[in-house]
Amino acid sequence: MIKVSIAGATGYTGIELLRLLVKHPEVEIVTLTAESHIGKNIAEVAPSLRGHFDQTLVKLSPEVARGCDVLFLALPHTTSMQNVPELLKAGCRVIDLSADYRLKSAQVYGDWYKTPHLNPEIIKEAVYGLPELHREAIRPARLVANPGCYPTGAILALAPLMTESWVDAASIVIDSKSGVSGAGRKLSQATQFCEANESVAAYGLGEHRHTPEIEQELSGLAGKGITVSFSPHLMPMTRGLLTTAYVNLTKRVSRDELHDRYAKFYEQEPFVRVHTLGQYANTSHVSGSNLCDIGVQVDVRNQRAIVTSAIDNLMKGASSQAIQNMNLMLGIAETTGLDAPPQFP
Amino acid sequence: MIKVSIAGATGYTGIELLRLLVKHPEVEIVTLTAESHIGKNIAEVAPSLRGHFDQTLVKLSPEVARGCDVLFLALPHTTSMQNVPELLKAGCRVIDLSADYRLKSAQVYGDWYKTPHLNPEIIKEAVYGLPELHREAIRPARLVANPGCYPTGAILALAPLMTESWVDAASIVIDSKSGVSGAGRKLSQATQFCEANESVAAYGLGEHRHTPEIEQELSGLAGKGITVSFSPHLMPMTRGLLTTAYVNLTKRVSRDELHDRYAKFYEQEPFVRVHTLGQYANTSHVSGSNLCDIGVQVDVRNQRAIVTSAIDNLMKGASSQAIQNMNLMLGIAETTGLDAPPQFP
Amino acid sequence: MIKVSIAGATGYTGIELLRLLVKHPEVEIVTLTAESHIGKNIAEVAPSLRGHFDQTLVKLSPEVARGCDVLFLALPHTTSMQNVPELLKAGCRVIDLSADYRLKSAQVYGDWYKTPHLNPEIIKEAVYGLPELHREAIRPARLVANPGCYPTGAILALAPLMTESWVDAASIVIDSKSGVSGAGRKLSQATQFCEANESVAAYGLGEHRHTPEIEQELSGLAGKGITVSFSPHLMPMTRGLLTTAYVNLTKRVSRDELHDRYAKFYEQEPFVRVHTLGQYANTSHVSGSNLCDIGVQVDVRNQRAIVTSAIDNLMKGASSQAIQNMNLMLGIAETTGLDAPPQFP
Amino acid sequence: MIKVSIAGATGYTGIELLRLLVKHPEVEIVTLTAESHIGKNIAEVAPSLRGHFDQTLVKLSPEVARGCDVLFLALPHTTSMQNVPELLKAGCRVIDLSADYRLKSAQVYGDWYKTPHLNPEIIKEAVYGLPELHREAIRPARLVANPGCYPTGAILALAPLMTESWVDAASIVIDSKSGVSGAGRKLSQATQFCEANESVAAYGLGEHRHTPEIEQELSGLAGKGITVSFSPHLMPMTRGLLTTAYVNLTKRVSRDELHDRYAKFYEQEPFVRVHTLGQYANTSHVSGSNLCDIGVQVDVRNQRAIVTSAIDNLMKGASSQAIQNMNLMLGIAETTGLDAPPQFP
Repeated sequence: MIKVSIAGATGYTGIELLRLLVKHPEVEIVTLTAESHIGKNIAEVAPSLRGHFDQTLVKLSPEVARGCDVLFLALPHTTSMQNVPELLKAGCRVIDLSADYRLKSAQVYGDWYKTPHLNPEIIKEAVYGLPELHREAIRPARLVANPGCYPTGAILALAPLMTESWVDAASIVIDSKSGVSGAGRKLSQATQFCEANESVAAYGLGEHRHTPEIEQELSGLAGKGITVSFSPHLMPMTRGLLTTAYVNLTKRVSRDELHDRYAKFYEQEPFVRVHTLGQYANTSHVSGSNLCDIGVQVDVRNQRAIVTSAIDNLMKGASSQAIQNMNLMLGIAETTGLDAPPQFP
Repeated sequence: MIKVSIAGATGYTGIELLRLLVKHPEVEIVTLTAESHIGKNIAEVAPSLRGHFDQTLVKLSPEVARGCDVLFLALPHTTSMQNVPELLKAGCRVIDLSADYRLKSAQVYGDWYKTPHLNPEIIKEAVYGLPELHREAIRPARLVANPGCYPTGAILALAPLMTESWVDAASIVIDSKSGVSGAGRKLSQATQFCEANESVAAYGLGEHRHTPEIEQELSGLAGKGITVSFSPHLMPMTRGLLTTAYVNLTKRVSRDELHDRYAKFYEQEPFVRVHTLGQYANTSHVSGSNLCDIGVQVDVRNQRAIVTSAIDNLMKGASSQAIQNMNLMLGIAETTGLDAPPQFP
Repeated sequence: MIKVSIAGATGYTGIELLRLLVKHPEVEIVTLTAESHIGKNIAEVAPSLRGHFDQTLVKLSPEVARGCDVLFLALPHTTSMQNVPELLKAGCRVIDLSADYRLKSAQVYGDWYKTPHLNPEIIKEAVYGLPELHREAIRPARLVANPGCYPTGAILALAPLMTESWVDAASIVIDSKSGVSGAGRKLSQATQFCEANESVAAYGLGEHRHTPEIEQELSGLAGKGITVSFSPHLMPMTRGLLTTAYVNLTKRVSRDELHDRYAKFYEQEPFVRVHTLGQYANTSHVSGSNLCDIGVQVDVRNQRAIVTSAIDNLMKGASSQAIQNMNLMLGIAETTGLDAPPQFP
Repeated sequence: MIKVSIAGATGYTGIELLRLLVKHPEVEIVTLTAESHIGKNIAEVAPSLRGHFDQTLVKLSPEVARGCDVLFLALPHTTSMQNVPELLKAGCRVIDLSADYRLKSAQVYGDWYKTPHLNPEIIKEAVYGLPELHREAIRPARLVANPGCYPTGAILALAPLMTESWVDAASIVIDSKSGVSGAGRKLSQATQFCEANESVAAYGLGEHRHTPEIEQELSGLAGKGITVSFSPHLMPMTRGLLTTAYVNLTKRVSRDELHDRYAKFYEQEPFVRVHTLGQYANTSHVSGSNLCDIGVQVDVRNQRAIVTSAIDNLMKGASSQAIQNMNLMLGIAETTGLDAPPQFP
């Protein structure tokens, strides 16, 4: 059995990792860490897990890393990069769910996160953990930077078009709608029930930190620098992330051609489902799963492609994608422990 | 007292009209009609109104029109145009909340609604009831076509830019997020609680019937034909409609310039609130009111304006806007009966 | 115009008071205080009110009391009693929305609130502000203790039975279901969206501080000491409070007799609606109003009365009831500013 | 592999059966039937299942029964009893999720369901499928009547007290709060999003059809006839069922004694978690699982036990309990395919 540990086990992505890993046939959970609940049993902080775990939360240290083969970091950004060097040195492989190693440029990181990167040399070896794009690089990686939820939905929605000459890369608009769990478990006014319920609003327009991550990956696919307008919105629901992406087509492309392009691009992907024409992605059809649903349309009157993608932000947008990465790193079947159908309704 | 009646009183917009009109100081409610509940008391179908009304639902007929000064039609499209000629003939003024008289071209109506218009000659005299654009034409109108909810949000978000040379009119993308009440009170699978809850999805991409209405009004402002990409989405909430509109700027425009443009454009408007820079529109801040909140941003990296507007779809998107139109038609203060603050939370 | 001020204007009950008072025809709002937002404009903290108020938040002081006729205190318990003596001395009348003056016994207060009462002598002059029970005493009062949300729903549900010999007073079970806004606007884990959504749970069983308030009023009606089992539950909704009360009947009582008892008891009450038999109270039918809906049933197999009552916890459970009390104190029509129908849906 | 089929696969309980059975290691799904979607692929009606099934819906017939070892019936009541005789004759074992075989008395069935039972002789051999009470009888059963959601929550909450002399059996009050999915997938006004959202209400007070089922099982445990007051309420959430049960104690029982009683009673049960004192059951902690959480309290002032239980109404309240029954019938480990932790949040 592979030994895995989780740093930051009491947040939503940590709890979700636990939910999945406890049923994963190839791993054994060794250590759980937490900042603010050290000494408590995980089930006190996550009562849903009661009876499934009987484990005490400890402090993160190199000792934790030495005791496991794979360490998941579900920590806030900047906290990750403070710890990763010594954790890697301790000998384990790391899957980092924070933003700290996603950007290939330390300067871009500094610009968007308003703090210098602490270990730019480690950035180089980190692999961006979106299996649909970087599967082969993930397998041998020592450090995988698990993508953000918004970038996962946006990149999967747009990837098939980036390698085409069909599109005007300067025209990309990404309008994303996220459930509240995307904001994490920490207390805030905006995520209080009475403030988030019956409320839809944009935030961080043109300034959200997931923007450079999307641009990095789309640019890599297109082979040229691409900037996008990325607009996140908060929705009154717990889970789910819908992305609506708009791209101008530089030539007439039929709905069937667009659909075929997507169907072919994702043909071999176990976790991407391309809808038949006329069907759009719906967050409620992927809840609790590692799936990404995609629905495409051509607005023929405006020669514009409109692509919708739906993921569960805590799953394909975070924890289950981290496990998909782990499976690849361990050389086991990519779908291991991840093939349960979505929960509906 | 002005005598008003409501046809289609038992749907959500009908109930909302009643909620507002019963407290309106200048009107008296005369007759309520309904198709499927004739003979019942309105409070049986809308228990919230119990004690406020004690009125029996009757069938719509010219008699109803003869008994009132202003008749609100909260009927399905096509049903309105079957009735309007004889209702007008009976001598009352009509505010039609359906789509039947919103489009100036009978052909465009036929193309999008898949049925020929029954009385194209009446279209000509109908006034599109968006007071912020057509205040003077509404005052003397005999027939006002109350705008759709999506068009209200979208047009108010974009109007200040349409009369400017700043923008590329071919680049408009309108991404709208609506509460479920926008779908009306009739039964459907998609609006069942368990299907709509925890669900965000697009529908009718590039094909929604509110598109030509938006294009008609924006074209009118711009003085040239404009087409837009309009993407409606269903949100897991009862009320509220957020519009996020994207337009390419043809020259460098600062955030302050954009904000000033909006602030000036809506300076005199009693029901439009332009947020200070950095604040975005939120549906929960306008709920239960006739207000439209607007927040603007320039995505400077992409020279693109992003405008968010929030309305209550049953209010400014339907019933309270209809009363705003009535106030104009009656020559009384435009805000009469409409100046209560939003309900928060 | 009567001068009114609000202490604690930025919480949910404070905002709700503002929403109502700004449209109240007999009052003028003078001062708003807040603890943590002094110097800010109220609209920064409550964006829904933007344009309706342009007022800066100040600190509570006797000066505030001197400047108004009626002062609403929407403060946490214990904070109220620290301020009330000097506020009264300053000459204004006070409507206290906290729990500090609701209990007639300082000892009972101390037992349940785990702190000695600071001014037991003032308790004596405070009037429990449930107009349906204490209308005449409220009129001349200098200090009105506005009831808690749970007690309002529970007492109105049970009052008609307390003066009857029909019931076994030892058998009362009160099972209450509250929207999350009842917990106020302060941050807490339990009221975060993702924790409260899709969640129903009891809390404080047999120990909730609203218990003695319910018992005090029911005992007063019954003319003997009554204890009850009171069980509050948190519901995944913003507003609304449903009470289901159970009482054993000591003799056979028909459904019609029970219904008649309630209909007669509340016949003259402007804000209580007794449903016809077979209809039960629903929180969505009273939202945004000062109404209390009541539906009754006899479980004939068990000779037990079951009574449901629905209120809006921020309205009849707090702010609009406070204004109902103010109307009585001012000698104006009790329904002034409170007669708008509920908002549905 | 055991061959299983599902009749009524397109409702919420049918979809939930599929979600679980597709990952069950010992079974193979053979046939899916549906009334109104015959000929369609299941994934058209349940898009969440797309890619997991590629199966066409057929009509229910004895042929279906002949082709499988175990047949799940997720049909409306009365439809089940029209089909069960010939399905049993065809040779398969049947797990019926409807109410048709839950009541041991055909007369009680007729009284509550207002229609005579069609095959009273089959009632006799049916086993009430609550494993915690009838594990041994379920193993060899040919026909298992899967309990209703409300009875599952209520019986598990009260069972440990029924075999005690501590309680006044005439005093039982059961106040239940259910998510909307309990009403099934058929269209209705009350379950439309805008009617159920922000709405809490009771229904069927003293008259709900799950009452005799609860009474039958509690009476069986107590060894004497027991009647209860059972009050169902609809909550604005998709899944989850909270039961709050009240029973008078005939002698002083401490909180520890009550807790010990429950802890011991359920000590060996794999799917019942008894909370530590002071913790109450919460629907969000069991979502997506077969678990029943129980929290107990003594209201010492009134010598009354208050017990809360939480289940997922579609799981332990329906589909996963049906699979628990299947596991027992097949002689495999009872937890097979059912041991994934709940999904939180």
